[in-house]
Amino acid sequence: MKAIIHVALKKTVLDPQGRAITNALRSHGHDEIVGVRQGKYFEVELAPGATPEAARSRLQKLAAEALANPVIEDYEVTILDHP
Amino acid sequence: MKAIIHVALKKTVLDPQGRAITNALRSHGHDEIVGVRQGKYFEVELAPGATPEAARSRLQKLAAEALANPVIEDYEVTILDHP
Repeated sequence: MKAIIHVALKKTVLDPQGRAITNALRSHGHDEIVGVRQGKYFEVELAPGATPEAARSRLQKLAAEALANPVIEDYEVTILDHP
Repeated sequence: MKAIIHVALKKTVLDPQGRAITNALRSHGHDEIVGVRQGKYFEVELAPGATPEAARSRLQKLAAEALANPVIEDYEVTILDHP
């Protein structure tokens, strides 16, 4: 089973990296760019056997404990496929 | 209009960061994790006016030139919504 976990700064938290990317792109002539926010994602390959519901709840816990900082970051778990 | 650009190392390129995350998670008891690959993503807010097709082609170019290193990284542009 495969899953994707997206982690990004909360919308209410200033994202200086995204701001820097926005400015760099605009100064290179990409005037159509209004804003950029950067995040990271994890493509997770899981051992078969678990149900998608069980996998999702395990990964939610794992994301909150190990992959994201819930104080300033949001995370989202997406189960991609399940046999 | 909003778009997401995902950037990650090509499948054929060794991902030491993903390997380290895998090992760390497994050593913390998450035995169901077979593998992890890490990537980054950019949530891009575009000025209105362009068609989704035009926006996609602009962003493909931008991703290849500025956000990804096409020698070792793959990128994928997803247009999220368009009024």
